[in-house]
Amino acid sequence: MKQLLIALSAVVATTLTFGKNIDRIDPPFWWANMPVSELQIQLYAEDIGSYRAEIDAPGVSIARQIAVDSPNYLFLYLELSPETQPGTLAINLSNGDESFTLDYELKQREATEGRNQGFDSSDLIYLMMPDRFANGNVDNDNIEGLTEKVDRSDPTKRQGGDIQGISDHLGYIDDLGMTAIWFTPMFENNSPPEYGGYHGYAASNMYKVDARIGTNEAYKQLVSDVHDRGMKVIMDMIHNHIGLDHWWMADLPTKDWVHDVEEFGYTNFKGTIHGDPHASEYDKNRLVKGWFVPYMPDLNQHNELLADYLIQNSIWWIEFSGIDGIRMDTYLYPYKDYMARWVREVLAAYPSFNIVGEVWVETVAHESYWQDNAVKTDDGYDSELPSVTDFPLSFAIRDGLKEEFGWTTGLSRVYYTFAQDRLYTDPNNNVIFIDNHDMSRAFEHLGKDENLFKIAYSILLTARGIPQVYYGTELMMEHENRGGDDEAWRQTMPGGWPDDERSVFTKKGRTDKENEILAYMKKLNHWRGENKALHDGELLQFMPDENTFVYFRILEDQAVMIAINGRDEEAQLPVDRFAEVLDNYSSAEIAPDGKSIDLSDTIRIPAKTALLVELSN
Amino acid sequence: MKQLLIALSAVVATTLTFGKNIDRIDPPFWWANMPVSELQIQLYAEDIGSYRAEIDAPGVSIARQIAVDSPNYLFLYLELSPETQPGTLAINLSNGDESFTLDYELKQREATEGRNQGFDSSDLIYLMMPDRFANGNVDNDNIEGLTEKVDRSDPTKRQGGDIQGISDHLGYIDDLGMTAIWFTPMFENNSPPEYGGYHGYAASNMYKVDARIGTNEAYKQLVSDVHDRGMKVIMDMIHNHIGLDHWWMADLPTKDWVHDVEEFGYTNFKGTIHGDPHASEYDKNRLVKGWFVPYMPDLNQHNELLADYLIQNSIWWIEFSGIDGIRMDTYLYPYKDYMARWVREVLAAYPSFNIVGEVWVETVAHESYWQDNAVKTDDGYDSELPSVTDFPLSFAIRDGLKEEFGWTTGLSRVYYTFAQDRLYTDPNNNVIFIDNHDMSRAFEHLGKDENLFKIAYSILLTARGIPQVYYGTELMMEHENRGGDDEAWRQTMPGGWPDDERSVFTKKGRTDKENEILAYMKKLNHWRGENKALHDGELLQFMPDENTFVYFRILEDQAVMIAINGRDEEAQLPVDRFAEVLDNYSSAEIAPDGKSIDLSDTIRIPAKTALLVELSN
Repeated sequence: MKQLLIALSAVVATTLTFGKNIDRIDPPFWWANMPVSELQIQLYAEDIGSYRAEIDAPGVSIARQIAVDSPNYLFLYLELSPETQPGTLAINLSNGDESFTLDYELKQREATEGRNQGFDSSDLIYLMMPDRFANGNVDNDNIEGLTEKVDRSDPTKRQGGDIQGISDHLGYIDDLGMTAIWFTPMFENNSPPEYGGYHGYAASNMYKVDARIGTNEAYKQLVSDVHDRGMKVIMDMIHNHIGLDHWWMADLPTKDWVHDVEEFGYTNFKGTIHGDPHASEYDKNRLVKGWFVPYMPDLNQHNELLADYLIQNSIWWIEFSGIDGIRMDTYLYPYKDYMARWVREVLAAYPSFNIVGEVWVETVAHESYWQDNAVKTDDGYDSELPSVTDFPLSFAIRDGLKEEFGWTTGLSRVYYTFAQDRLYTDPNNNVIFIDNHDMSRAFEHLGKDENLFKIAYSILLTARGIPQVYYGTELMMEHENRGGDDEAWRQTMPGGWPDDERSVFTKKGRTDKENEILAYMKKLNHWRGENKALHDGELLQFMPDENTFVYFRILEDQAVMIAINGRDEEAQLPVDRFAEVLDNYSSAEIAPDGKSIDLSDTIRIPAKTALLVELSN
Repeated sequence: MKQLLIALSAVVATTLTFGKNIDRIDPPFWWANMPVSELQIQLYAEDIGSYRAEIDAPGVSIARQIAVDSPNYLFLYLELSPETQPGTLAINLSNGDESFTLDYELKQREATEGRNQGFDSSDLIYLMMPDRFANGNVDNDNIEGLTEKVDRSDPTKRQGGDIQGISDHLGYIDDLGMTAIWFTPMFENNSPPEYGGYHGYAASNMYKVDARIGTNEAYKQLVSDVHDRGMKVIMDMIHNHIGLDHWWMADLPTKDWVHDVEEFGYTNFKGTIHGDPHASEYDKNRLVKGWFVPYMPDLNQHNELLADYLIQNSIWWIEFSGIDGIRMDTYLYPYKDYMARWVREVLAAYPSFNIVGEVWVETVAHESYWQDNAVKTDDGYDSELPSVTDFPLSFAIRDGLKEEFGWTTGLSRVYYTFAQDRLYTDPNNNVIFIDNHDMSRAFEHLGKDENLFKIAYSILLTARGIPQVYYGTELMMEHENRGGDDEAWRQTMPGGWPDDERSVFTKKGRTDKENEILAYMKKLNHWRGENKALHDGELLQFMPDENTFVYFRILEDQAVMIAINGRDEEAQLPVDRFAEVLDNYSSAEIAPDGKSIDLSDTIRIPAKTALLVELSN
């Protein structure tokens, strides 16, 4: 193993010109003149911990080099001053007896225009799972060395969707009126079939797109193609855990790299513990140190080497691919001080970026704990996180539309959720949704009631916040009950696979009902896209009354009235009650069609309908 | 009417030596050297608005004198400097044609020791309705001039309870382990029978105890008697509304003294509107300006004369009677800026005082809006209110114990409510309760399940906050379904009336079950009274697990473990989980009996039980 000048691993083949047999170099390359000056290089090779590095290059100095519990790692911390030049950096490594040179690439940064744009309430996010959207390249369905194979007969297994499939159908997404796409993770997940790594949340390599989905370069091209259409990309990341088959697991850098599942067991999933001033240490430890599931080792971000590694990984992907935002998975499960540091450093490096954390909790009190410094917290915690996934609003819409109207139930749930918005720093930066890849599909959840589904969708597009639509929702997809918890709502898109009998990507391939609902959504989406009152307008709400609920979005000389009738018959609301808004506008048109409506006396809302009225002068 | 030197009204007979026929003088007297220097005197007499006053007394000056819409009022604002002497103040009034002198009494203040003490989490509050507790004086059941008569056959009507009845049974309350009594209002409520003013919330005179309940002097003596027993008194006040038969209503001082029910209708009762950043003006107006019920005119506290009157009324009762705290009714219905001013001025005058507002809302987000400056509010509102009625905790206990255990339901409701405590400035200053005069009785609500009732009571006595017990709860009272909404839980105490067949105030008069439950509560109450960990201890809670829930109250070298088992069979909890607390204590005894318990391995909790364990060294 100590031979010099031998063949290099595939991963780093392009960056090493000669040297020891280095198995892994993370990150595989870097850039000169980055917004952060420190660079951590993790070298993995037999006995590399006994080597020490020297560098002689303008602007570059070695700040620290750290050997760890395993002799097979060396962590180099370089300080790159503004004088650093792009090009090949020669890192001379020696253990006294032997020495070699590692050529490390410092790329030239790309122009920033149209990259790393962030996302906001003017956007409409399409959430998709790459394995389940479209299989554009059957040749990469099964890859030598990646254990799990495509199995179209089993919905809990990999289906073969890939970047090529997404690229093939960007027009469909664009046409729908989406302005951003959140892809669930594409990291290599080399899990054995019984663990089903198709979802991407169990990374075996955080620097590599799974070869069954595509390549790093293909991912970068995808981001560029999405940008070319005027849309944005939100990348899904996970710092709470890795996959059991992550290459680290065979030879952990340090004993404390992941939490000991024997000692801490599995997480208690009680995300509210962080914001609970009365929480016990036992529960806190279980939450943060317990494993998410048996095949996802829980990372210890209190190990500084790991923390640096993770933050740098985010920065690397942002710089490499040009993505516009990050959706961070399982936000409540890592150490919260680490999460705040991660956000702070990423946003300091990319100020126009945006980040949404998956904060899955039941109450606004707990959800809001995580948005920036929304509310002075007992513990002084400031998450620094700009955006949270608004689960309380999602539950309110989903549960409220299913249950009987009452003082706090039915449509009143939505009203009460908005009514707690003071707890957020900026609720208009919350990502809002009626379903996602971890929840039953909205149409199914609402008992396949098309009217309720349309009300839910109308609230989604008109509430404060950044709406997110789950793929297939545009087709009013139902569940496919083929076994598995999640799999019922993670079905593949018909037409995404070469042997599919029909294609929902074409009008001809869709059913009449699908064409109808798609046309409805498309119109609404495009209407929202152009309606600034729905992006930035003040929300003004009126107390629900007898299963009706009216709210407005108001932006100076334009406004939208959302008048919801949950009754089984037409509702007639006197306009007087809404005079404080209506009196400011002379024109009222039903959206998105633009038919004018008479609001001089009574607002007539058909049964089980969200009437959307555009107000202007 | 313009004769001088005629007989004076009964109200002011002792303070006027000669003068015009003054029908009303509010306040009827005042004190020298008060903590506030301004005094508003409201004079009511035919055409008094055309008179102007002059005073020549050391330390006293007239700051303003204000005539209003009605010619029959004059508002005098006096400035009383520290030089002001107690005694009779001659106020010379003249309208140019005629003049007279009004002798106004400025009393000597009483020693403050043992008066105006405030209340806190070391207290246990007994809430009672004076009309429903005990009738100690049948001679005052019906009073000439007060229209409603006692009707024992109709629970919606006045029953005849009075101050004498309360005085007769102070020993019962004291013996129970109560340390404070909150009386629902005793203000004169001269409502006609159809409006049922027995509850006291529809004042016809805010300076007078209802003659059917007693006299101002009797009230003062009652406070003194309660103090002599080491207990405290909390007075119930209402600044949102008066009774339709308040004497103002026949001749309103100003057109805007009460809100116009024709214009604003009835309140929408949506108390959450204040804390809702999205609330409409329409809804805000309805909430604040609408009448509570048809027989309770809504006061306009934005009229400064009225605001001054109301604040001064509070100060007058505090000074006159020696009460220790105020429970302010319908806290969400007046203007919130007024309420903050009221609190500020009362607490500035009586710094050791405490005030709890009846904040009836469903969520912690909204409840906490009202406690001091708990959380930075969008609107910058600081209520300045120290204590709120903790409805969210009450609902959590009541509903949680009735429903199936789940992630957010059952015992988890209580856990989630505590988990939101960061939103409060000081949740330990919340008044907590499992029932009150506006809610179904706890035992009835819990399906007459004695075990659930005892769990509820155990939570009440061990949670953070100031526990309040509703009269009759110590007897596990059920409802008496004799008609009326409130009346089912506002029954009279058997033995409080001379012709009652039995008396719950004596052991002999109580059923075996009543004696049993009373003994149980008495023990628990006294135990709580002496256990400082339950007054001031930190709350530490463990996530509920399979219908069990464990929390602690910890104060340095003592602690209490509250281990609740909601299951129908014994629960065995491993002690390891609680080591962070248990390891600090060497002694464990079951409260309140003091039997030692072995916590070396497993905590055994009997079915449907709250096990209370006192920990010490």
